[in-house]
Amino acid sequence: MVDSAGRNWHAPMSEEAKETGRIEAFSDGVFAIAITLLVLDMKVPGAKDLPQDVRLISVLGRQWPTYLAYVTSFLTILIMCVNHHRLFQHIRRTDQVFLMLNGLLLMGVTVVPFPTGLVAEYLHHREARAAAGVYSGCFVVIAIFFNVLWRYASHRGRLLVKNHNPDIVAGITRQYRFGPVMYAVAFRASFIRVTASVGICLGLARFFAVPGSGRRSRMLEWFTQPTGLNVT
Amino acid sequence: MVDSAGRNWHAPMSEEAKETGRIEAFSDGVFAIAITLLVLDMKVPGAKDLPQDVRLISVLGRQWPTYLAYVTSFLTILIMCVNHHRLFQHIRRTDQVFLMLNGLLLMGVTVVPFPTGLVAEYLHHREARAAAGVYSGCFVVIAIFFNVLWRYASHRGRLLVKNHNPDIVAGITRQYRFGPVMYAVAFRASFIRVTASVGICLGLARFFAVPGSGRRSRMLEWFTQPTGLNVT
Amino acid sequence: MVDSAGRNWHAPMSEEAKETGRIEAFSDGVFAIAITLLVLDMKVPGAKDLPQDVRLISVLGRQWPTYLAYVTSFLTILIMCVNHHRLFQHIRRTDQVFLMLNGLLLMGVTVVPFPTGLVAEYLHHREARAAAGVYSGCFVVIAIFFNVLWRYASHRGRLLVKNHNPDIVAGITRQYRFGPVMYAVAFRASFIRVTASVGICLGLARFFAVPGSGRRSRMLEWFTQPTGLNVT
Amino acid sequence: MVDSAGRNWHAPMSEEAKETGRIEAFSDGVFAIAITLLVLDMKVPGAKDLPQDVRLISVLGRQWPTYLAYVTSFLTILIMCVNHHRLFQHIRRTDQVFLMLNGLLLMGVTVVPFPTGLVAEYLHHREARAAAGVYSGCFVVIAIFFNVLWRYASHRGRLLVKNHNPDIVAGITRQYRFGPVMYAVAFRASFIRVTASVGICLGLARFFAVPGSGRRSRMLEWFTQPTGLNVT
Repeated sequence: MVDSAGRNWHAPMSEEAKETGRIEAFSDGVFAIAITLLVLDMKVPGAKDLPQDVRLISVLGRQWPTYLAYVTSFLTILIMCVNHHRLFQHIRRTDQVFLMLNGLLLMGVTVVPFPTGLVAEYLHHREARAAAGVYSGCFVVIAIFFNVLWRYASHRGRLLVKNHNPDIVAGITRQYRFGPVMYAVAFRASFIRVTASVGICLGLARFFAVPGSGRRSRMLEWFTQPTGLNVT
Repeated sequence: MVDSAGRNWHAPMSEEAKETGRIEAFSDGVFAIAITLLVLDMKVPGAKDLPQDVRLISVLGRQWPTYLAYVTSFLTILIMCVNHHRLFQHIRRTDQVFLMLNGLLLMGVTVVPFPTGLVAEYLHHREARAAAGVYSGCFVVIAIFFNVLWRYASHRGRLLVKNHNPDIVAGITRQYRFGPVMYAVAFRASFIRVTASVGICLGLARFFAVPGSGRRSRMLEWFTQPTGLNVT
Repeated sequence: MVDSAGRNWHAPMSEEAKETGRIEAFSDGVFAIAITLLVLDMKVPGAKDLPQDVRLISVLGRQWPTYLAYVTSFLTILIMCVNHHRLFQHIRRTDQVFLMLNGLLLMGVTVVPFPTGLVAEYLHHREARAAAGVYSGCFVVIAIFFNVLWRYASHRGRLLVKNHNPDIVAGITRQYRFGPVMYAVAFRASFIRVTASVGICLGLARFFAVPGSGRRSRMLEWFTQPTGLNVT
Repeated sequence: MVDSAGRNWHAPMSEEAKETGRIEAFSDGVFAIAITLLVLDMKVPGAKDLPQDVRLISVLGRQWPTYLAYVTSFLTILIMCVNHHRLFQHIRRTDQVFLMLNGLLLMGVTVVPFPTGLVAEYLHHREARAAAGVYSGCFVVIAIFFNVLWRYASHRGRLLVKNHNPDIVAGITRQYRFGPVMYAVAFRASFIRVTASVGICLGLARFFAVPGSGRRSRMLEWFTQPTGLNVT
C-alpha cells in the first residue's frame, strides 16, 4: 500500500473507485438473485396428474427442455456477471446516463427467467420456434445493452480509470461487437431448428467466458485485478 | 486519507457513518430482491391452454400490460433505491423512530410486485381502473413514507451529517413534496384512462431520476459522494 | 483508531470481531430475502374468476387477512433482524454448537412465509383457529430458538466480547424470557379469537422493538455501537 | 497489522486474498437465496379444497414429507455453505477452470429446491422411490463437484494460499472423498426405503458439519480463521 517513497498509492485509487462501488454491489445482488430464481421454472409434476402406468422418471426425462433451458440461462447469466465485473474494472466514474444504461442492462438480466420458462414450456410444442425466438431475442437485446453501456462509458475514455490501457479497451469493444451478431444467429436459427438455437446460446456462454487467449486468459487478468491498474 | 498536517480525516468520518451503514446495506438487499421478484409477475402462458389456431407470439403480444407494468415498476424501484441512497448521504445518525419509518418504507417497496401483478392481470379487464388505482395508490403511500422519513431525519438537522448544507437539505425537502402530489395525479388519472395512469408513473420515475439540473446533475453529485461531505 | 499513546485499538478489536462477521452477513441476507418473499403470499385474484357483478376493490378488501398477516410477519421479521444484530453486538466468538443454533434460528425465520400464507388463506374459514395457532406457534418456536442461542452464547460469557457489561447481558436474558411466554399467549388466544392472536403478534413486534427505556433506548445504543464496546 | 519490525503483514495478505473475495461474496449470496427459496416448496393447502369433515391440522400433519425434505435441504445447503467457506480459507488464486467449476457447483446448489419439491410431492406416492432417488442423486452430483473443485484447486497447491499446511489440505481431500460415496449410499437406499434415503442425507449434513474432532473442531478453526494462515 505504501511504496518505498512513502507515497500511499492505495488511498487515491480507492477514492477513485468509490463512484461505481455501490452500483457494482447492487448489480451483483441482482445477478445472484436472478440466477437463483431460474429454479422456479422447474415445475414439479403434480402427483395426482401422473397416469397410473407412467413412471415419474420418464416424466422427468421428457422435461429435458427445462433442464437445457436452465443450464443455458444459468451459464449465460453467470458469464454476464463475470463480464459485468470485467467492464467495471475499467470504469471508475458514473453519470446519469450510465446509471440508466446499467439499469436497463439489469432489467434485461432479471427478465431472463421468463423466456427460460417459455422454452421449458414450449420446446415440445408446435410453437417451440416462437419460444426459442423470444429466448434468443432476449439475449440479442441484452448483448446490445452491454455494447451501449460499454461504448458510452469508454467513448473517449469518458468514465474509464485514468490510466486505462487503450489496447485493452479497444479489444473489449471489438469482442463485444460479436455479441449481438452471434445472438442474432441464434435468433435466426430458431426459425429452422429450435435446439440448435438454444445450443448456440449455450455455446456463446462458453465463448464469452474465454475472452482472450494465452497462458492465462485475459478475462482472469481483469477479473482478478480489481484495481484495473495494469501495474507491470 | 491523511492530509498534509498529518490529521486523519477519514477515521472520524467513517466513525460517524457507522450508525446507518447496516440499515443501508439491509435496505439495498431488500431493494435488489424486490426488483428481481417482479419477473414472477410475468406468467408463461400454459402450452395446453393455447388454442390450435393461435400463435404464441400473439398471446405474448396481448400480454403487453404485463410488460408495461414490469418496466414501470422496475424503473420506479430502481429510482427509489437511488433516492434512498441519496437521502442516506445526508443522514448519519439513527434512532428508534427512524428505524421504524425506514422499515415502513421498505414494506411499501416490497409490496410493489403485488399491485404490479394486479395491473398485469386486469389491464384488459373491465376492472382495469381499480387495478391502476391500487397501483398508483401504492406509489402515493410510498412517496408519503419517503417524505415522512426525510422530514423526520432532517427536522432541525436531527439525524443529518454535522456539516450538512442547509440549501441542499431544503432542496430535497422541496422536491420530495412533489412526490405524493404527482402520484396522486396518476391515481386520479386511473379513474379516467388506465394507461395514462401507468404512463404517468413511468414518467415520474424519469422525473425523480433527474433531481437537479446543471452540467452534472445533483443526484449524481450526491450519489457519488458517499461521504456526504461537500468538501470544496 | 490510533490513540494518543500510539497504540492501534482498532486492529485487535476488528480481529476479535472477525469470527462472527460472516455469520452476521449471511444471516442478514437470509432475513432480507425472507422478508421480501412474504409478498408472494399476496395472490392476485384471477381476472377470469371474478363474477360479473363483483368489483375488484371489494374482492381485494375481503383479502384483508392477507394484508394483516403480511404486515405482522414483515414487522416481526424486521424486529427479529434488529434483535439478531443486537445479540451479535455482544457475541464475538463462535463454535460448532453456536453455528448450528444460529442455523436453526434462521430456519425458523425462513419458514415464516408459510404460516403467513396459512393465515391469509384461512382467516375467513372455519379452520381459521388452526391457521392462527400454527402462525403464533411458529413464533413461539423462533422465540425459544432466540433464547437458546443467547443463553448458549452468554452462559458464563462463553462467546461474548471480553469486556461485556454483565448488567446489559442479564437485561437481555431477562427480556428474552418474555418472548416464548408472550407468543404462547398469542397461541392460546388463537383458540378463542383468531384476530386477537394475530394482533398480539403484531403488538409483540412493537414490544421487542423497544427493549429499554430512557432518553435514547438501549436497542439503539446497541444497534449503533457495532463494536459492542461500551467505551465511556 | 504492523509487527514489531514495522513490516505490514496485513497488506500483502489481503492483496493475495483479493482474487477470490468476489467469488466468495457472490457464492454466499447464491447460497443465502437458495436456502430461503426452499420455503416455496411448502404449499398452503387450498381452503376450498378442504373437505367439510377434515381438520386443517391433520392435512398439515400429512404433509410431513414436505417438512422432512425442507429441514434436510436447509441443513444440507447450510453445511455446504460452511464447507465452501472452509475451502476458500485455503484458496487464494483463481483461474478460468476454477471459475467454471465453482459455477457448476453453484448450479448444483441452486437446483436443490427442485428435487426437494419432488420429495415433498411424491413421498406418499407409489413413485416415492424415484423422487428420493433424484433427491439423493442430486447430492451425489454436488458432492462430486465439491471434490472436483477442491482437487483442481489443491493439485500441487495450484491455487492455494502460499503457506498452506499440507496435512490439513490432505485431510480435507480425504474427508471429501467420503461425500460422493455416502450420498451414493443414500441413493441406493432410495430403492429400498425412501425415508431411510432422506434420513441418510439428513445424517450426512450432521457428518459434514463436524469435519474433525478434538477440543475445538477443525471446521471452526478454519471457519474462524479467515486468513487461512496457521500462525502459531
